[in-house]
Amino acid sequence: MPRDLSKLMTPRSVAVVGASPRAGSVGGEILRNLKRCGFSGELVAVNPRYEEIDGLRCVSSIDDLPETMDLVVVAVNRHAVLEVTEACGQHGMRNLVIISAGFKEVGDEGARLEEQLRELIGKHDLNVVGPNCMGLINSSSDVLLNASFSRWFPESGDVAFISQSGSLGETVLELFAESGLGVSLFANLGNRAGITENDFLAYAAGDPQTSVVFLYLESFAEPLGFRRLVEELAGRKPVVVLKAGRTEAGAAAVASHTGSLASPDAVVEAFLRQAGAVRVSSIDEALTAIRVLERGVVSRGGRTAILTNAGGAGIIAADACIRQGMTVPPLPADVQERLGELLPDEASVGNPVDMIATANSEAYERALDLTLPAVDAAIVIFRPPLVLDEPPSAVAEAIVRAAERHPDRPVVVCTLSRGEAVHSVMRRLTEARIATFVMPESAVDALRVLCDLGTLQARQAVTAEANGGGTPAAGNEALQAATGDGRSGLTFDEGATVLAAYELGVCPFTYASSEQEASAFAEEHGFPLVAKLDAPGLAHRFEHGAVITGISTLEQLHDALGQLRGIATGELEGARILLQPQLAGRELILGMERDPTFGPVLMFGIGGTLVEALQDVAFAVAPLTEEDALRMIRSIRSFPMLEAFRGQPAVDLNALASALVRLGRLALDHPEIEEIDLNPTIATDTSATVVDILIRLAQQPGSRL
Amino acid sequence: MPRDLSKLMTPRSVAVVGASPRAGSVGGEILRNLKRCGFSGELVAVNPRYEEIDGLRCVSSIDDLPETMDLVVVAVNRHAVLEVTEACGQHGMRNLVIISAGFKEVGDEGARLEEQLRELIGKHDLNVVGPNCMGLINSSSDVLLNASFSRWFPESGDVAFISQSGSLGETVLELFAESGLGVSLFANLGNRAGITENDFLAYAAGDPQTSVVFLYLESFAEPLGFRRLVEELAGRKPVVVLKAGRTEAGAAAVASHTGSLASPDAVVEAFLRQAGAVRVSSIDEALTAIRVLERGVVSRGGRTAILTNAGGAGIIAADACIRQGMTVPPLPADVQERLGELLPDEASVGNPVDMIATANSEAYERALDLTLPAVDAAIVIFRPPLVLDEPPSAVAEAIVRAAERHPDRPVVVCTLSRGEAVHSVMRRLTEARIATFVMPESAVDALRVLCDLGTLQARQAVTAEANGGGTPAAGNEALQAATGDGRSGLTFDEGATVLAAYELGVCPFTYASSEQEASAFAEEHGFPLVAKLDAPGLAHRFEHGAVITGISTLEQLHDALGQLRGIATGELEGARILLQPQLAGRELILGMERDPTFGPVLMFGIGGTLVEALQDVAFAVAPLTEEDALRMIRSIRSFPMLEAFRGQPAVDLNALASALVRLGRLALDHPEIEEIDLNPTIATDTSATVVDILIRLAQQPGSRL
Repeated sequence: MPRDLSKLMTPRSVAVVGASPRAGSVGGEILRNLKRCGFSGELVAVNPRYEEIDGLRCVSSIDDLPETMDLVVVAVNRHAVLEVTEACGQHGMRNLVIISAGFKEVGDEGARLEEQLRELIGKHDLNVVGPNCMGLINSSSDVLLNASFSRWFPESGDVAFISQSGSLGETVLELFAESGLGVSLFANLGNRAGITENDFLAYAAGDPQTSVVFLYLESFAEPLGFRRLVEELAGRKPVVVLKAGRTEAGAAAVASHTGSLASPDAVVEAFLRQAGAVRVSSIDEALTAIRVLERGVVSRGGRTAILTNAGGAGIIAADACIRQGMTVPPLPADVQERLGELLPDEASVGNPVDMIATANSEAYERALDLTLPAVDAAIVIFRPPLVLDEPPSAVAEAIVRAAERHPDRPVVVCTLSRGEAVHSVMRRLTEARIATFVMPESAVDALRVLCDLGTLQARQAVTAEANGGGTPAAGNEALQAATGDGRSGLTFDEGATVLAAYELGVCPFTYASSEQEASAFAEEHGFPLVAKLDAPGLAHRFEHGAVITGISTLEQLHDALGQLRGIATGELEGARILLQPQLAGRELILGMERDPTFGPVLMFGIGGTLVEALQDVAFAVAPLTEEDALRMIRSIRSFPMLEAFRGQPAVDLNALASALVRLGRLALDHPEIEEIDLNPTIATDTSATVVDILIRLAQQPGSRL
Repeated sequence: MPRDLSKLMTPRSVAVVGASPRAGSVGGEILRNLKRCGFSGELVAVNPRYEEIDGLRCVSSIDDLPETMDLVVVAVNRHAVLEVTEACGQHGMRNLVIISAGFKEVGDEGARLEEQLRELIGKHDLNVVGPNCMGLINSSSDVLLNASFSRWFPESGDVAFISQSGSLGETVLELFAESGLGVSLFANLGNRAGITENDFLAYAAGDPQTSVVFLYLESFAEPLGFRRLVEELAGRKPVVVLKAGRTEAGAAAVASHTGSLASPDAVVEAFLRQAGAVRVSSIDEALTAIRVLERGVVSRGGRTAILTNAGGAGIIAADACIRQGMTVPPLPADVQERLGELLPDEASVGNPVDMIATANSEAYERALDLTLPAVDAAIVIFRPPLVLDEPPSAVAEAIVRAAERHPDRPVVVCTLSRGEAVHSVMRRLTEARIATFVMPESAVDALRVLCDLGTLQARQAVTAEANGGGTPAAGNEALQAATGDGRSGLTFDEGATVLAAYELGVCPFTYASSEQEASAFAEEHGFPLVAKLDAPGLAHRFEHGAVITGISTLEQLHDALGQLRGIATGELEGARILLQPQLAGRELILGMERDPTFGPVLMFGIGGTLVEALQDVAFAVAPLTEEDALRMIRSIRSFPMLEAFRGQPAVDLNALASALVRLGRLALDHPEIEEIDLNPTIATDTSATVVDILIRLAQQPGSRL
């Protein structure tokens, strides 16, 4: 149930507690911002030392406020925050922005203070932004609220910008202003004692002025809710996320900055992609993404045409396209032929289409009309030449006309200049919401975002589909038996029961307590066989010498039994001997670990020692769709090994994907399972079969072995 | 012998042929640029239709020029270019900038015209820039020459900028102006019928005003000379190269744009790195690199301290450092302790050092003094806070003072803003040549360039050391025998002789024509053995079924002989049977191919089917140093497989590197060898031994097999 932020975001009356006319007073700065920004509601200062500040009425305390204020901005010493908050609660003033710092971010004493603040928030059911934040901005033309000490009050626009960092938030607002980007709302989350990014996401979803959401986050307040909100939102309003703390050093800094534990970045990456968010990795990239998303045309694929009147820039753009995973395919023969008729002999009609410096508006318009139907998107490079028989803005008009005739094909423009000669070009294109960049590399970055978003929007919705399924009854019994015994892991047969309940294919097996039983198994399944020792949660059988492969005769089989019995002592005492047919196929690793932030995380990789050295694995957060699973499988570097290779047919990717999806369901259904390691799982052109199983339970701190 | 460009670059008299007062006349534009830029020498226009243009004297033809002009700019119809050039040659005017287009770039007719132009250049020994170029600029304050139609006449500075593309060149000049970067000279190479980038490199090397060279190239006019020049230059004046056409699509565009064949980008990458150039991959990155290189302090390593008054930006910087291959190590305990005394409790003294918003000039100065000695470089993030007890420029002063006390440690600054509040900060830092950026990511890019350059400058000089060596006499005989027969490849024993001449270790072998000989070899070397068929230049023995491995008994050996004799028919007729001991160790691939642009290119990779699927190989251009070879070896993704791994000791990397160096010498000494494939070469902790040899010769179009 999302909080109702409507009064917080569109207040008709605001009190600023702790405002002062002294230089350097943060409260005073906020009061000035509120006066300057055009806010038309009632404004009151609260400070016992003054009766008036900057011509505004000033009262001594919350109790003295003339009415119930819609919004109270608190900028007092941290030791006074609790008192002010309690007073607000008592007077039914439920919307607070707490600017004051000195809470969780400064150590134990601050953390205790913040805990008390959280209690007050719960007690009075308050909507609190902060503490330790820069404040809140609503730039909608009918609100005009700058309840922050930001020096930048952005233009009204359609981007909701939610930032966990204050200083970075202000920087981005400045860059927005430079790029002519407008904002619907800005919120600096601060310590998130009350309102989180999820609440603002829910608000932005319903805010008619917002069409793009941009989040700068260092950690997630509540990741499952975040994923659900982004999934709901992403089809209508793109969500761009800059998540800092990608690397170990960054994560350490996040931990010391926000007090949050960081998950491995590969997991964050998977989580955001699965949610449908557009992830960017720098502030520049974020701005590029937001600018291009405002038009709302996404790309159905990566096939890109490059039209240029400057050869070198075309080459640079082509390079950048390929680097970004897009393609610059040769144009169809008939298109090339017609371009050849249109353009002078010196032009190049392949792709990039080098129209040479003489290209005018007609050339651009007709070339775009010819090429756009043959590709998914176009980059138009137009640097006004020294000599042109028309004003440069005529070319801009031509580009706009052509782009409008192909409304499902994104067109981005690059001018190679921000000088005076291109001002009219940029203005016209921006008016028409055609994103325009100086550098070809930025134009390509922008297209890549539209491609990504196209792919994300084509995804099926995950939540309903992937949460169902599974017939866990049999599996439940096996798990209960193990937890009942207080064990830290399952035996192979218990694991096989759990996996079978989720229709995961397990290799046939038996426990052989005698040579006779072993021989019978061999007779049934034929050779070669594998024999190994099994005990609850036994990891690293190989390192214990407890796996014998390639058993090809009865004699070898009986020898193997003897050998395994010989080592079933010490910590392996009581281990049983497991027999399996030795399967042929590609050796894979499927796994699951529980992440403290995101819950069950699935892992996929190719087996074998080389891959172990390469650490070539992919992740996804449960629940996942078959599509998520397929992307995971395709994303490993050694994916070519799964395709038809050296005479082996391609692996059945759908069987594999389906196994990963069901493993995710299993993990969601059974929070008592801490870790699953299906290594190896053998894949062929028809199946994916689990050969070894390690299932570790959460109850106990470590494994028995 | 480099051309003498002094008169071309610092002329005292300039004629512009084809200048006209009409709007859109390129010659007229150049004349205006020459008047506007402050050029103080003599200026004459050449055009039979006018007697005066813009108040300047205009004569009818080259013959009518009053004196021998130092520089003639030619902007006439392409069909008049040859005539003008001939006239210049006859009158001893040796320095020409030919702006006119319509040569090689427009097809066969233009190419013929360009060929004739080249003949005239040779005949009169002319220095010609172009044709099809934008022109030449010398911004030195004592010259002030704008012999181009560029709309941007850059400030005088220390960057020599040489661009193969005209439009891109102009864009970069505009960006230079925006970034406050000055230029010593600018040249647009155009079609390079005469002067190439190498001539300008040689000029820049001796030009006292130039301290950084920036090249935008789509192809190399003469790569060996380029490498020699950059090697000589790079220690004194960093050479930054933006090479377009990295990707297949980009390369195709280069081919159609410049008519040059493109080499694989991995080879270009290796070539530039070996030469000691700083390679950048975008225009933005180039600007960042140039700005930071102007100060001339390179970094000895990647250990980076981040000092910030904005937590979020510190995290973003840390992430970017790691992404760029640098480290953000925790500071030593004593440094942390002293930072703790210096900074308030809320600060974080790990790394990033979050000094929080209250940090003033004293805090910045002392924190830098404490941290710089513990790292290789520092990123200082200073966004002026709302409240500061001094002007922001005081912090800039403090940073400058601290940086000057540690002259061997690069310091870059990031302001998170380009607003008014930071103008004084940027001004002061720029004065002190401390590169200042808005975004943390750019500051990190800049440091990475200094790191790269530090590594490049630490390299030993290659040319002398790696060109010597080898005792090719014996190898010569084997090669002569093969070329004498008109063969396209060598047999194994011939190949072994050639390799042995360069001290490359080859696995013991014999040709066994009888069971008896085979048994004798087995007795000498023991089992296991390998038997294979050998014929000149026989590639893909495996695919012919002509390799039998794992021979462990005499019986198996004799069987193998029979089997190989059985398939020695058809195209394998006459092939001999080769016996070798089967070596244990890591399977590697060493190879050499001749690149049409760069000559012998060495290849290194790990053997086996997985790596084949991964295409995990590295390249270097011969000659190479042991250091180049080591970097090559370390750069493959599966390098961990060469380190101690799963019980195997680490491979002897020096033996391996040395083998690559000697393979490079072999390839340089023997241009008749087209391709070498040593696959596999078996590496152990003490040696690298070649097990299979394919040497293909250049004389014949294909292999016999």
